[in-house]
Amino acid sequence: MLHRGCKIRDLTPENVIRLEVDAVVLLDQRRLPEEEIELRCASAAAMAEAIRDMAIRGAPAIGIAAAYGYALAAAQGDDLDEAYDALSSARPTAVNLRWALEEMRSDPTRERAQALHVAEVECCRRMAAHAAELLATGVWLKPDPSGARVVPGFSQAPAVRVLTHCNAGGLATGGYGTALGGIRAAWEQGLVEHVWVGETRPRLQGARLTAWELEALGIPFSVIADGAAASLMAAGEVDCVFTGADRIAANGDTANKIGTYALALAATYHEIPFYVVAPTSTLDVDTETGADIPIEERDPTEVSARFPARNPAFDVTPAKLISAIVTEEGVHRAPYVTTLPMPARSAST
Amino acid sequence: MLHRGCKIRDLTPENVIRLEVDAVVLLDQRRLPEEEIELRCASAAAMAEAIRDMAIRGAPAIGIAAAYGYALAAAQGDDLDEAYDALSSARPTAVNLRWALEEMRSDPTRERAQALHVAEVECCRRMAAHAAELLATGVWLKPDPSGARVVPGFSQAPAVRVLTHCNAGGLATGGYGTALGGIRAAWEQGLVEHVWVGETRPRLQGARLTAWELEALGIPFSVIADGAAASLMAAGEVDCVFTGADRIAANGDTANKIGTYALALAATYHEIPFYVVAPTSTLDVDTETGADIPIEERDPTEVSARFPARNPAFDVTPAKLISAIVTEEGVHRAPYVTTLPMPARSAST
Repeated sequence: MLHRGCKIRDLTPENVIRLEVDAVVLLDQRRLPEEEIELRCASAAAMAEAIRDMAIRGAPAIGIAAAYGYALAAAQGDDLDEAYDALSSARPTAVNLRWALEEMRSDPTRERAQALHVAEVECCRRMAAHAAELLATGVWLKPDPSGARVVPGFSQAPAVRVLTHCNAGGLATGGYGTALGGIRAAWEQGLVEHVWVGETRPRLQGARLTAWELEALGIPFSVIADGAAASLMAAGEVDCVFTGADRIAANGDTANKIGTYALALAATYHEIPFYVVAPTSTLDVDTETGADIPIEERDPTEVSARFPARNPAFDVTPAKLISAIVTEEGVHRAPYVTTLPMPARSAST
Repeated sequence: MLHRGCKIRDLTPENVIRLEVDAVVLLDQRRLPEEEIELRCASAAAMAEAIRDMAIRGAPAIGIAAAYGYALAAAQGDDLDEAYDALSSARPTAVNLRWALEEMRSDPTRERAQALHVAEVECCRRMAAHAAELLATGVWLKPDPSGARVVPGFSQAPAVRVLTHCNAGGLATGGYGTALGGIRAAWEQGLVEHVWVGETRPRLQGARLTAWELEALGIPFSVIADGAAASLMAAGEVDCVFTGADRIAANGDTANKIGTYALALAATYHEIPFYVVAPTSTLDVDTETGADIPIEERDPTEVSARFPARNPAFDVTPAKLISAIVTEEGVHRAPYVTTLPMPARSAST
């Protein structure tokens, strides 16, 4: 049971989300950081609604949530086709929902869902190690006219100022994190000096969730308005960018939280490496390019309660702006169409 | 007297800001759009505080506010050096404060301040006409593979989708607007189809003030998260960008509200014209390049009340990313160092 005032040391996979006898129980991310409150979802339909309303969010985490919701429906003897449809359509952009539900179809048990959860967390730890290695080897370095941040022979990398967007931490993944997991692992090795956290309008996942995780981990950080990132880059205060992904097409084009594309454009202009950290479950061999990724349009009132608004939840960063994609299998570089460890093409296509 | 529920037809120069016998009275922009309330500043010190806390903001408007504050101090027999210092240091980035106060020094009368106000509004109308002409002549057009938006011979321009940031409207200028004035004038000529309004975190001048003005004017618009602009550009939904300026250096480098630089980078990448609309009072011949412009760092609690934050209020867009600068004198293009109508270098340098 999670109590108010819990710290990140309590952000175990079970505290992010778990399956109890009669419900899926999760930390309600809509209430963080003000309140640490659990939400009980007693049916697949309730689980789907919690995903839609972002009580739990993040591509890997909603995959796990869907798996638990499906296992709950199976245990309760509910119509599994109905459960599948409700859960898979809760949000359109991430491919993890469909991926996890396909996994569950052949084995709709509690044990299978838990195994998926454990595997996802293990996967995060592996990709975090690869991401940290990327910083440790100093391959991100570019020549600095002052010489100050260049390491002769790249034998020892200095600590870096990393910029991240949205939340790709333990909350987004059921326990450890993708982009933020990589930052965490790198920080434990002394490779991170400071983290810039884009607040991530309109839902403020950076300002609320990533900041909450970093504070608990004791990693130095500053929240910034999303529009401030480019000027920090121009001022030489950003060494690299780490973001997660909601879906990666076969050619490496990557859908992630709205605002990511602008960061990639600014990073490219300033010759700052832009890294995507995501599990192979985010790769979608059936999606050839970013143009084929459906972009969720959410309720405009999330942007403005009073005036007309547009609210695309994601944008697509073309592969050519991405310095490397890090998965649990390693660090992949262009041409992604040949280097990404794509799962086999699904039978349906 | 301004009442609740007033509409833009009431947004006369006097309703934005005016000098009464014993106070400067202004529409409190911190309360918009929820409440339309006037604030009375009974001294130059109170006027300076209102500028600092952004009850009135926008480079031209704070210049006018400073002039009225100075005239009030003179009428009340206050120490004018003290009034000058308080008003000129209220905010550091815009050059208009210093410009207006220098104008007032030689003639610290009520009539002089009112004349500056009238001149600023007149100036806006002239630059708006130039900005509208820019759209009317179709020089913003680029070849479109589909051919749909290309006008043979540029004889008649289609209506455009303009993106703007922050508020460069009547509220920012004491009555008509710079970038938003241009949009307004162009819309009246049938040249504008839709306005995209960046919400402009952290103070939301776009979502609160520009939206309020556009609604009252009946111009179709949508508010967007700042991070969504680049993906709208990628989708071909933005034809050009219009922003104001807080200070323009002699070489054309332009300081404007934080987030402007990211828009300029994205516009450049997508080959979308990026226009700055600002009066010549914003030009600073004493500032050679953008690197010399002091950038105001505001209270971090404007970004996050709970976590550490950085809050630069402005950023600098290098001249090379700016398609044209529009002033009341006309449309100026690179090389700005020779084309900008710079006032004479100030005597002090």
